Amino acid sequence: MIKGFSKFSQEQKIEALASKYNLPTSFKEVLKSHHHSALQDLYNQFAENTISNFYLPYSVAPGFVINKKEYAIPMVIEESSVVAAASKAAKFWSAHGGFRTEVLSITKSGQLFFTTEWSLEELKDLMPGIESALRNSVRDITQNMEKRGGGIAGFKLTHEARVDEQTFCLMVSFETADSMGANFINTCLEQMGDELVSFLTQRNDTRPVEINMAILSNYTPDCLVQCILSCPVESLRPYSGDYSPQEFAMRFKKAVKLAKHNLSRAVTHNKGIMNGVDAVVLATGNDFRAVEAGVHAYASRSGTYASLTDIILEDNVFTYTLELPLALGTVGGLTLLHPLAKLSLLLLGKPSASELMQIAAAAGMANNFSALAALVTSGIQKGHMKMHLTNILTTLNANAIEYQKAKNYFSDHDVSHSAVKIFLDAERLKEQHRQK
Amino acid sequence: MIKGFSKFSQEQKIEALASKYNLPTSFKEVLKSHHHSALQDLYNQFAENTISNFYLPYSVAPGFVINKKEYAIPMVIEESSVVAAASKAAKFWSAHGGFRTEVLSITKSGQLFFTTEWSLEELKDLMPGIESALRNSVRDITQNMEKRGGGIAGFKLTHEARVDEQTFCLMVSFETADSMGANFINTCLEQMGDELVSFLTQRNDTRPVEINMAILSNYTPDCLVQCILSCPVESLRPYSGDYSPQEFAMRFKKAVKLAKHNLSRAVTHNKGIMNGVDAVVLATGNDFRAVEAGVHAYASRSGTYASLTDIILEDNVFTYTLELPLALGTVGGLTLLHPLAKLSLLLLGKPSASELMQIAAAAGMANNFSALAALVTSGIQKGHMKMHLTNILTTLNANAIEYQKAKNYFSDHDVSHSAVKIFLDAERLKEQHRQK
Repeated sequence: MIKGFSKFSQEQKIEALASKYNLPTSFKEVLKSHHHSALQDLYNQFAENTISNFYLPYSVAPGFVINKKEYAIPMVIEESSVVAAASKAAKFWSAHGGFRTEVLSITKSGQLFFTTEWSLEELKDLMPGIESALRNSVRDITQNMEKRGGGIAGFKLTHEARVDEQTFCLMVSFETADSMGANFINTCLEQMGDELVSFLTQRNDTRPVEINMAILSNYTPDCLVQCILSCPVESLRPYSGDYSPQEFAMRFKKAVKLAKHNLSRAVTHNKGIMNGVDAVVLATGNDFRAVEAGVHAYASRSGTYASLTDIILEDNVFTYTLELPLALGTVGGLTLLHPLAKLSLLLLGKPSASELMQIAAAAGMANNFSALAALVTSGIQKGHMKMHLTNILTTLNANAIEYQKAKNYFSDHDVSHSAVKIFLDAERLKEQHRQK
Repeated sequence: MIKGFSKFSQEQKIEALASKYNLPTSFKEVLKSHHHSALQDLYNQFAENTISNFYLPYSVAPGFVINKKEYAIPMVIEESSVVAAASKAAKFWSAHGGFRTEVLSITKSGQLFFTTEWSLEELKDLMPGIESALRNSVRDITQNMEKRGGGIAGFKLTHEARVDEQTFCLMVSFETADSMGANFINTCLEQMGDELVSFLTQRNDTRPVEINMAILSNYTPDCLVQCILSCPVESLRPYSGDYSPQEFAMRFKKAVKLAKHNLSRAVTHNKGIMNGVDAVVLATGNDFRAVEAGVHAYASRSGTYASLTDIILEDNVFTYTLELPLALGTVGGLTLLHPLAKLSLLLLGKPSASELMQIAAAAGMANNFSALAALVTSGIQKGHMKMHLTNILTTLNANAIEYQKAKNYFSDHDVSHSAVKIFLDAERLKEQHRQK
């Protein structure tokens, strides 16, 4: 056990790990070479026990037209093909009306769980008084949020009878303007918890009130955004491959139906949406775990986990829709602290949180559209394997000439690590012979 | 619209964006200062349209004891407190038996959807022949995987009657040894699709067979890992704050029950698990969207989205369990290509995929345990606001002396951006007066 690790300097932490786990000198060198010469102190503050930085590719998908405004969308993602797929869909749809998006609601919620012998009816009768006392108790925190257009939106009491007869939840809904609002909501709730206890005990009642916990929820079914793509079926020809646009549209429709009704398929269908969404979430310094949890729980709200998109094929018009909850911020948290998150917001024209919800939804829709279009025509492996080949060649230290030769050869041969190695070994032997 | 963007050099891409969106010169400078002097070409290959690198803090949570082996776990996460919470739990549990983990199963699955007028019964009768033909058709791909201990595990035919009467799914299960296996599974499935069509049409039958799509599923309920923490209730004293260890254990148990029965709570409960899991997934070059989709869909498998953890309090023993699906790899993809992912695997002692599943599960469990322990005692804001204060002070360019003064002052005052600004302004005015 390394004692006092968290108190060590960064240098000492690295030394301690290298020595305890017998790591080669390259360990230290790789970590050092990924430090930022000027900003490392800043990056070290974002988490604890930092010893270096993990690089994710910072990309741009240009040409997105969302509600008639053009965006170059910053995307941070380590998976190949995602940015290319988003860019391709952006280009196509920019010529067909673009992405039409709309924020349907922006309410988030927090939960104050408490246990008491008061009955549901008694508590319900007291709700107007409780509401007003709780609002008052956080006035110092909410007044600033109110200036920015947010605040407390409402209260709802529920009986948590499945846990036990004495447990209740006060659901408090919030609007948090351009911040994601986690700190604001949690601070309000913890303060409200104290107030709730004193409010009830001040009723000259001896029954105790115990706060179980006070915390925001990442389930945000009332912080919803919608995205719509629509064009004449005939226009889909650039995507239809060997099929007619009509056949392509029918195959696409069946793919969406499969993702509605088959759980295993729905999960991967939605994963494709999140490839695009998370790339924007990361690029703007938002919390992708929060977004992921909220989105997938929303996908299961009917009791069966299902696709987040839907399709209408009518009168030779293809209409594809997406609806998902996205609680994002463009101020607070890391959004303006992280140099590249700040830069992303600058590139997007300093959007409001609502605008960012729409941009992220459009990126998700773009990726899902491209993925599905590939799946129902040539399959996704063709594009993927091209990327895969590049990665294998990199591992094998291929030079530029070898790259080109391999790309030609594998355009009609199956890519695998061993096949590429055999090909490259043969090429290198031939080259040695030529040089003799 | 920027024409030909993807063909531009990195330099040209940056110039084109700066000029089109009228961005300040700092845009170019920030991007450039985040390039890696030696490895930028490598990083550029991980995604398309890259213009720089997005830094995430690379941290280590030391002192994890998992099945009696000690690990320093690399974590990549932009959210403050997560690494500290994981480290704290690791230290505590290392003195109480450590994390006991077990891989319950390692099967992944892929889906071959097809449409035909053949009936379910006819197809079922043909299944032995289909299986053997399909296995043969991918022999060239599977033989290497078999050498590594993986391969095709089985076939299952389902009727997708909710989509339409003619649609079927051939679920193929795979074991993929130490790779996550996405490319392997997708390549097999696409090849199997071609074979299925020729197999059925060779039966001298005129009924057409159409492949709808062939792709892996990220729903992996048969790639499961379990984690158990257990200790005498009395030992929980370091976490119990103002409560007795017995009260703390009861409060913790209620928190777990709430996450079992209250949807909004379950989502955030599981999000806390994923904070730890994803930090390891990212640090090792795995795909967090795939993991997230699979985990949250698994959490909704009963028809109600619920907590992934469970608790038993009996005979004064506290036992806390976690079960979740995790399809991870330690070879293939970015795992050995990304310099820091490779380094993470080195730090972990070059684990197998199964070992990595257990490490990620332990990290998730550690974070959830710490979060819940804080929630049922002092609340999470105390720790969070300390971090929040640091972030605000950074934005306001506080110096070391100002940091210290602010930390003292805000130890018993509420933290908000405006409160910190007012405090700092006052301090700076005082300092000016002193200097006069």
